[in-house]
Amino acid sequence: MDLSLDLDAIFAKLPVYKVEGETELTSISGIASLKNAKRGDLSFLANPKYKAEVEHTNASFVLLPDDYTESKSKPGQLYIKTPKPSWALAKICRLIFGQLFSHNQKGVHPSAWIHESATLNEGVSVGPFCYVGPGARIGENTQLGSHCHVGENVSIGEDCILYPGVKLLALCELRNGVVLNAGVVVGSEGYGFDQVGGSHEKIPHLGKVIIEEDVEIGANSCIDRARLEETRIGAGTKIDNLVQIGHNVRIGKGCLLVAQVGIAGSVEFEDGVIVGGQAGFAGHLKVGKGARIAGQAGITKNVEPGAFLKGNPAVPVQLAHKISILQRKLPDLFKRFAQETDKK
Amino acid sequence: MDLSLDLDAIFAKLPVYKVEGETELTSISGIASLKNAKRGDLSFLANPKYKAEVEHTNASFVLLPDDYTESKSKPGQLYIKTPKPSWALAKICRLIFGQLFSHNQKGVHPSAWIHESATLNEGVSVGPFCYVGPGARIGENTQLGSHCHVGENVSIGEDCILYPGVKLLALCELRNGVVLNAGVVVGSEGYGFDQVGGSHEKIPHLGKVIIEEDVEIGANSCIDRARLEETRIGAGTKIDNLVQIGHNVRIGKGCLLVAQVGIAGSVEFEDGVIVGGQAGFAGHLKVGKGARIAGQAGITKNVEPGAFLKGNPAVPVQLAHKISILQRKLPDLFKRFAQETDKK
Amino acid sequence: MDLSLDLDAIFAKLPVYKVEGETELTSISGIASLKNAKRGDLSFLANPKYKAEVEHTNASFVLLPDDYTESKSKPGQLYIKTPKPSWALAKICRLIFGQLFSHNQKGVHPSAWIHESATLNEGVSVGPFCYVGPGARIGENTQLGSHCHVGENVSIGEDCILYPGVKLLALCELRNGVVLNAGVVVGSEGYGFDQVGGSHEKIPHLGKVIIEEDVEIGANSCIDRARLEETRIGAGTKIDNLVQIGHNVRIGKGCLLVAQVGIAGSVEFEDGVIVGGQAGFAGHLKVGKGARIAGQAGITKNVEPGAFLKGNPAVPVQLAHKISILQRKLPDLFKRFAQETDKK
Repeated sequence: MDLSLDLDAIFAKLPVYKVEGETELTSISGIASLKNAKRGDLSFLANPKYKAEVEHTNASFVLLPDDYTESKSKPGQLYIKTPKPSWALAKICRLIFGQLFSHNQKGVHPSAWIHESATLNEGVSVGPFCYVGPGARIGENTQLGSHCHVGENVSIGEDCILYPGVKLLALCELRNGVVLNAGVVVGSEGYGFDQVGGSHEKIPHLGKVIIEEDVEIGANSCIDRARLEETRIGAGTKIDNLVQIGHNVRIGKGCLLVAQVGIAGSVEFEDGVIVGGQAGFAGHLKVGKGARIAGQAGITKNVEPGAFLKGNPAVPVQLAHKISILQRKLPDLFKRFAQETDKK
Repeated sequence: MDLSLDLDAIFAKLPVYKVEGETELTSISGIASLKNAKRGDLSFLANPKYKAEVEHTNASFVLLPDDYTESKSKPGQLYIKTPKPSWALAKICRLIFGQLFSHNQKGVHPSAWIHESATLNEGVSVGPFCYVGPGARIGENTQLGSHCHVGENVSIGEDCILYPGVKLLALCELRNGVVLNAGVVVGSEGYGFDQVGGSHEKIPHLGKVIIEEDVEIGANSCIDRARLEETRIGAGTKIDNLVQIGHNVRIGKGCLLVAQVGIAGSVEFEDGVIVGGQAGFAGHLKVGKGARIAGQAGITKNVEPGAFLKGNPAVPVQLAHKISILQRKLPDLFKRFAQETDKK
Repeated sequence: MDLSLDLDAIFAKLPVYKVEGETELTSISGIASLKNAKRGDLSFLANPKYKAEVEHTNASFVLLPDDYTESKSKPGQLYIKTPKPSWALAKICRLIFGQLFSHNQKGVHPSAWIHESATLNEGVSVGPFCYVGPGARIGENTQLGSHCHVGENVSIGEDCILYPGVKLLALCELRNGVVLNAGVVVGSEGYGFDQVGGSHEKIPHLGKVIIEEDVEIGANSCIDRARLEETRIGAGTKIDNLVQIGHNVRIGKGCLLVAQVGIAGSVEFEDGVIVGGQAGFAGHLKVGKGARIAGQAGITKNVEPGAFLKGNPAVPVQLAHKISILQRKLPDLFKRFAQETDKK
């Protein structure tokens, strides 16, 4: 990593902090783990198990929790104490991020194609080979990477990031602060067919997708449009790569969906649901607030709020663990049962 | 939804229908559920459980089954009776579809690049930043969204829709009426390697993919080309998002493959097979006509025609249900068995 | 298949071979299975179960193992004997490959956009609508299909093939001989969030991805960048379609990952690990050298070198098979147990 970030800019990101030590440096030149950091770098103690490494680090700037007292800063080294170093780090990284990944210049790349009826607000950047269709609206400071498609009458909020190759199909809406990783598709046709005279006839999908504030979606994930009304992803929900969200699904706020999860049509999640990787949901289910679903689970019934399920068909996680242990004992059980019945 | 669709155009789509009531309206302005419809809208009764909503709807046009008699149309409201309202709706939606999603103008977008040896038939539209390679042929009225790649000597039939970002690699063939959602890849290299001196050496894939009439494929799904001959998807088969079809697979006609299904190389499906989401098939299997495979099932052996399998390894669905129930009773069985043997 | 490949060019690819028979042909016009081959074609015996077809084939050129003696070449037909025909075939197919899939002319397509600070070495071809960002370096003879994105300071080695729509995000590195199928994403943001005051706050990912020599990655697969340092795929590893590799994962050399596998963050694979389709790995695990994981397995603990695991939770494959068999006998066991206890 090779960057130059003003110390003042960093401190401006930390509302609460206390500095120990002194340095003549006025900028940081990199960011690294305690072990790998060198002079000029910023490092951090996010996980207490690395506490012993703090006093040996060569980092010039060390983010530490308020209650850290195990060592003192070396000459030329700053300790920056703050309530939650990992969060402070995240805020700093966002600054750095802009320096490292500045592949979009501000403004519209000359190769992009913007329909004359589209609206681009101040600070919008549009990457190479982007297409922005008729009636589309893009909010302030939103960035589009290369090869994005913004369909007819799509609405995008402020401060969004679309990585290269994102496809937003007609009518879809993104609120502020949405991040879509490369290859995400929003507004694909839903999977709905009628049986007519022995063949599967497509039910056209005229609805849209609404993605609320601060949602992030991982690479190559797909969100289908609704049949008539809307598919909706609630504010602050984070979706990993290669996830499938069917038509008319409603995901609540602050949910986490790990990679390769699949959610069939018309499922409803309340807020704060957490789903492990590769889990699947049959259509038209309701999943209660704060429910947790283990990776690879298969959900075919409604899920109560706060439930923690595992397996396929899914059962409460403690029962699932018991079943797993007892399954391994089945060979022994069968053998002993045979012995018992033989005796008689 | 905000549209204007001529009533005559709608009736032209319905070969069999009967109208009850009168209206001065000559066009419909939207389409919505019985509950949400307002004046000017078209609505429909597709599922009998909503029957009671018909008499209260504000829709100006209501598609109803022939045998509906529970209420009469209000003043200014038309009842349109037809044997299968959901299918009638689908046909009407296709008309609307063209109005809502007209992001491709007719003709070739000025930013597209068409090789001089490619053939575009009448009515073809090619979206922004499409590439059409040497020797490619595109049939009448086919539409390519933005950022599509049509490789060398690819052949595309009539009335196909390629959404943005579809990649059709060299030599592949689409018949008429094929729909490929955004990000679909057709003709990727198959996954085949030889062990040579301890390393995995690629077996080049020189075959192609043939996609028959009226196949639809969901967003970001992948169909690998054959090693030498062909991978084939049968007419009328509908494939959902993020599905993987390996090299040399042959899928029959009228099959349904729900999202995230994976099918390894050289598998053969007969017609009418239905596969639930996230199910997986090992290589070189045969799956008989009309077989049904539950979501997340793992198929490692041939499947008989008409079978209905579930679980991994998959068993007949009734046995799978029994096993699921009995698994939950394992803790009790083990306890009771221990008690019985202790007694002696 | 319709091609023309010089016999001399073919023989040049085979270091060890012996020719039997005679022909006036000086080039091959196609390649096909023994059964389907016609005059002018090359065919091959790769699998002994097709041995009986050799003497009946119409192929003009037949690749055979050294020890084949069952028949003699017909007039105008060459038998080409070589230690490993499938590998000889693969080497020949690579030549043919260039003829069939020459959609990229040499050089830079006029529609591509190359940043002035990027470096393209000799023999590089860049397809239509590619974007190559500032500071990017592309090694000799590397080919980029259409619509590729090569981000800021990306480094690509020699003899790589990027199929259409590949997205290589900033800072990532490909070594020599890497093949990325259509739609692959390298360097997407990792899935990492901090809980701050009840909401999920993004941890920016500033690390990169390193893909070593001769790695191949299937269509629409995703490799996330590391949080700070690197995600790494070892030399010679082959990854199928729609696979997810999380941030900071390290995959060893010569591994095979079949389609739709998912690997959570910070997992480490030693060399030669083989993973069946749709298997999933929880985060921070170590998987030992040469371990084998069956399709759809769920791995939640470290895996010993050489282990062969199956099921979720995964157990040794033999135990998994036993459990599968006994599960089917559960209904009978429960019934008999009930009878036994009733007796008393």
